[in-house]
Amino acid sequence: MNGADALVQTLLDTGLDTVFANPGTSEMHFVAALDRQEGMRCVLGLFEGVVTGAADGYYRIRQRPAGTLLHLGPGLANGLANLHNAKKANSGIVSIIGEHATEHLELDAPLTSDVEGVARPMSNWVRTISSSESLCTDGREAVVQARGRPGRIASLILPANFAWSTMSHFSPMQGPVREANAEPIDEKQLASIAGHLRGHGRRTLLLLGGRATQARATTWAGKISAATGCEVMSEFYSPSIERGAGRTAVPRLPYAVDAALKTLARFDHIVLVNAAEPVAFFAYPNKPGRLAAPGTQFQTLSTHMQDPEEALHMLCEALGATRTPAVLVERLKPSSVLEDGVLSPESIGGLLAALIPENAIVVDEAISTGRAFDAATREAAPHEWLTNMGGSIGYGLPVAVGAAIAAPDRRVIALEGDGSAMYTLQALWTMARESLDVTVIVFANRNYQILRGEFSQVGAGALGKRATDMLSIDRPALDWVSLSIGHGVPASRVTTLGEFSDAVRRGLAAPGPNLVEVVL
Amino acid sequence: MNGADALVQTLLDTGLDTVFANPGTSEMHFVAALDRQEGMRCVLGLFEGVVTGAADGYYRIRQRPAGTLLHLGPGLANGLANLHNAKKANSGIVSIIGEHATEHLELDAPLTSDVEGVARPMSNWVRTISSSESLCTDGREAVVQARGRPGRIASLILPANFAWSTMSHFSPMQGPVREANAEPIDEKQLASIAGHLRGHGRRTLLLLGGRATQARATTWAGKISAATGCEVMSEFYSPSIERGAGRTAVPRLPYAVDAALKTLARFDHIVLVNAAEPVAFFAYPNKPGRLAAPGTQFQTLSTHMQDPEEALHMLCEALGATRTPAVLVERLKPSSVLEDGVLSPESIGGLLAALIPENAIVVDEAISTGRAFDAATREAAPHEWLTNMGGSIGYGLPVAVGAAIAAPDRRVIALEGDGSAMYTLQALWTMARESLDVTVIVFANRNYQILRGEFSQVGAGALGKRATDMLSIDRPALDWVSLSIGHGVPASRVTTLGEFSDAVRRGLAAPGPNLVEVVL
Repeated sequence: MNGADALVQTLLDTGLDTVFANPGTSEMHFVAALDRQEGMRCVLGLFEGVVTGAADGYYRIRQRPAGTLLHLGPGLANGLANLHNAKKANSGIVSIIGEHATEHLELDAPLTSDVEGVARPMSNWVRTISSSESLCTDGREAVVQARGRPGRIASLILPANFAWSTMSHFSPMQGPVREANAEPIDEKQLASIAGHLRGHGRRTLLLLGGRATQARATTWAGKISAATGCEVMSEFYSPSIERGAGRTAVPRLPYAVDAALKTLARFDHIVLVNAAEPVAFFAYPNKPGRLAAPGTQFQTLSTHMQDPEEALHMLCEALGATRTPAVLVERLKPSSVLEDGVLSPESIGGLLAALIPENAIVVDEAISTGRAFDAATREAAPHEWLTNMGGSIGYGLPVAVGAAIAAPDRRVIALEGDGSAMYTLQALWTMARESLDVTVIVFANRNYQILRGEFSQVGAGALGKRATDMLSIDRPALDWVSLSIGHGVPASRVTTLGEFSDAVRRGLAAPGPNLVEVVL
Repeated sequence: MNGADALVQTLLDTGLDTVFANPGTSEMHFVAALDRQEGMRCVLGLFEGVVTGAADGYYRIRQRPAGTLLHLGPGLANGLANLHNAKKANSGIVSIIGEHATEHLELDAPLTSDVEGVARPMSNWVRTISSSESLCTDGREAVVQARGRPGRIASLILPANFAWSTMSHFSPMQGPVREANAEPIDEKQLASIAGHLRGHGRRTLLLLGGRATQARATTWAGKISAATGCEVMSEFYSPSIERGAGRTAVPRLPYAVDAALKTLARFDHIVLVNAAEPVAFFAYPNKPGRLAAPGTQFQTLSTHMQDPEEALHMLCEALGATRTPAVLVERLKPSSVLEDGVLSPESIGGLLAALIPENAIVVDEAISTGRAFDAATREAAPHEWLTNMGGSIGYGLPVAVGAAIAAPDRRVIALEGDGSAMYTLQALWTMARESLDVTVIVFANRNYQILRGEFSQVGAGALGKRATDMLSIDRPALDWVSLSIGHGVPASRVTTLGEFSDAVRRGLAAPGPNLVEVVL
C-alpha cells in the first residue's frame, strides 16, 4: 500500500466519500488509488473553479465536507475564488493539493510555486504533509478541521513522493469524524434578549444568518415574531434559506445601500442569530458602510460556533411562545400568475414562484435580474435558496453541480446572469457527464448590468464610450444555446414569458441537465 | 482630477498604453478615467485568466508591459495561474488590483480578503497604495519594476478611496520608462568559455533560454556552432523562439525525461545563455530530476539580467567567427508536404510547416499532439513560436489574444489541446470582440492525453475504470464548433488531412478570428 492508497482509505474512514477533481501529474498516484480503494466517488471538472465551487455546494446541502483534488499552486490558484466564496459561506472542504516531490522543489521546475502561500488567504488551515508516517494523521486532521463548527477550508498539500512511497505501516481506522459540537448558548444573554423582546418587540429585528435560515430554526423565529411583534429577516447572502409556502417568511436584507438603510431605519435593536452587523457590500463615497440606524443596539443570540435552532428554541421557551402559532407563508394562487407577456424581472419571478418544484434547490447568481426574485418567489412551494456568500462571481454553476451530487433526488435550478455564468461555464460539462438534474436559466441582458448601477452609485459620473465598452458584453452577443450544446447540455432560447414558461416546465420535467437562455 | 485619472495619466506618461481588464465595482473610477484620459486602450476579458494571459502575450511580442485591471482578491486569484506563467516567462506586467476603500476593510464585507497575500506568490513586487500623495509615484514605480531586466510582475493594489479622491496636486510628468539596462557581460568568464569551445566544441551544448532564442541572438549562436562544432539547442519552454527558414535551427530539449537524458548524454559541457540547468518538469520515482549527464560542466555566458545578443556577439568575436557562415534552415520543399491522408501529429506538423505564414506568431499549447511539431515545422517560413514557461495550462488562448493586440499586422495561430483550451476558453470572445486575426486549431483527442503518459511514467500501474474516467473527457465529447460559435468565433470541424488543409488555409486568409476543431 502506498501513501495515496492510505490517504484515500483514511478519508473514506472519516466518512468523506466524494472528491471533486482536476488532477495533474503530481496527483496521478491519488487517481490510481481511486481504482484500488472502493467507495470514493470522484467527479471531474474541466476547470478548478468548478471543482471548488462544487465542494461548496455539496457542503451546503449535505452539511459535510467533500474533498477537492487540485494540481500544484496554479491549479489551486484557479480554484481560489470559489474557495473564497466557500470560506465566507462557512462550508467545510478538504482541499487536497498535489505538490512536486520534496527533492524536486529545489530544482525550481516551471510549475514550482509557493503552494502554502497560495492556499493561505482562502484557507482556515494549511498543512504540507512532511512524512509518510504523518500522512494518515494529517488526512484525518484535515477532515476534523473541515468539520469544525462552522465548517472550514482545510488545505492539505501532498508531495508526490509521499503519495508514491510504500507505507511501512498503516494506522488502524478510527471511524467517522463528526461535526464539532456546538458551543452552549449564553443563557444570561438569552434572558436579556428575551427581556428586551418582551418590552420592545416592535422596533426589534431578528437577523438570521448561516444555518439560522434553515426551516428548523426559522420555525422558532416565526413564533418569536408572532409573540413579540419583532421582525425576522436574513442577511442579504445566505448559504441556504429554507423558504416558501408553509414556512416562516424570512425576507433578505436589500443589497443596495439606500434600500438597506431605509429597511433598517425602522429598528433600534437588532438581535444577531448566526449573523453579523449588516454592512455594505462595497464602499461608496459619502455613504455609510454600516447599514443599521445610528444608535442601534446589537445583541448576539448565537454565533457560528453555536446551534441557532437550539438558541431560537430556547428563546422561544423563555418567551413562553413555543405554542404560539406563527404566521406562515401561503401557497401562491395559480390564478395570480401571468403565463404570457413581456419578460421582466418581476414577471419572471412571478412565474418562477409557480414553477419551482417542491424541495428544489435554487442556486441564485442572477445578480441584477434576480433582485426582484426574493419578493416574487416568496409563495413558491417549499424549497432551498442558495446565494453567494463571498461575492466572487462564478459561484453559481459549480455550486449547482455540488448540490446536485449531494442531493440526487432533488431538482436543482441555477439562476445565472450571462456575465456571471461565463466565469465558470465549464461546469455545464460536469452536469452533462454526471447526468445531473439541473436546469440552468441564463438571463442574457448582455451587460455587466450590476456594474452600470455601481458606476452610478460610486459617483463615477456619466458613462462615456470607453467605460460603456467595459460594461457591455453585447459585442458579440454570447450565444448561450451554442455554449451549452458545446458542453453537452441541451438548450433553448426564449424571448417571451410564454416561451419561458414552456421551456422551464419542459426542462424541469426532463432528466439530466438543460439550459434556458432568456433574452432580456 | 481624481486619483484614478492621475493613475491613468501616470501610466500613459511612462509609455504604458494598453490595459487588459475585468473590472468590478471597486474599479469603476478607473474605468471612468478611461473616458477622460485619451490614449489608453482597454481590452475586456470575460474571465481574469484571459486578462493576465493576454498581458503575458503582449509582453512577449512587444517586450513592454501592459496593465491588467482586476477586481479585489478573488478577481486577482482567477488571474493568478497565468500570472504564474508570465512570471516564469519573465514577462513584465503592471497588475492593478482594485481594493475596498480603506475604511471599508474593517467591516469584513463579503469580498474582503488578503489581497497582498493573494498577489505575493505570483508577483515579484507588491505594493498597496497608501495615500493620494504617493499614488503617482507608486504607479510609476510599478512600471519601472515591470520593465526590469528581466521583466517582472508588479502588483499595485488600489484602494477605491484613493481612486475617487480629488488630488490636491498632480506631479509633473517624467516621461517614458525604458527597460532597465543590461548588466555587463563577464569578460573573464567569456574568455574561459571561448577557450573551452576552441578545444572541445564537439561535446559542448550552447543552451539558449529567454531572449537568447530571438533571431538577433541565434544568428551569432549559429556562427559559433559552425566555427567550433558545438550544438545549439533551446530549453523545452521558451517565451518566444524566432525560427524557420533562413535562421539558425534551435531544436528544443525534449519534454520526456528519458528522451532528454538521451539527448544530453552526448555533452560533457553546457554553456548557459539566459538558460538554467535542464531539469525534469515533474519528479518521477527512480528517475533523475537533473537531466544533464553526471559530471557535466556548466558555464554561464549570460543571465536574464544581461543581453544574450551582446553576449553571443562577443563570444563570436572572441572566437574570430563573426564572418563564419552559419548553417541556416532551408525552406520546406512544397513537394514534400502531404496534402491529404490520415490525421496524425506528424502529418499535421508537416502541413503546418507549409501553412504557417511568414512572420506569424504561433502560440503552442498543443501538449501531447504538439510533441511532433518542433521537428516537423523546422522548415516553415520564418515565424515566432511561443510556449508555456510556467506549465499551468490555459495559457494559450489568452496569450494569443495579447500577441494579436501587440502585433495587429501579424497572423496569430493558437495550437490547443481540447483539454487545455477549456481552462480559458472565454478568450475566444475577446478575439471576436477585438476582431483579432487569430486562427485557433483545437486538437480534440478527447483525453487528458498527457496525463495518460504521465500516469504510466510515475509508475501508477495500470489504468482502472475510475482512473480512466479522470483522464478522459469524451463523455460527453466537447463540441468545439458550438463552443466557438457561442463566443462569436466562426468555426469548422475536420477529420482528414485534406479537410484540415482547406480549413486552416481558409482561416489564415480570413480577417478576424476563426477556429478549426481537429478530431483525432
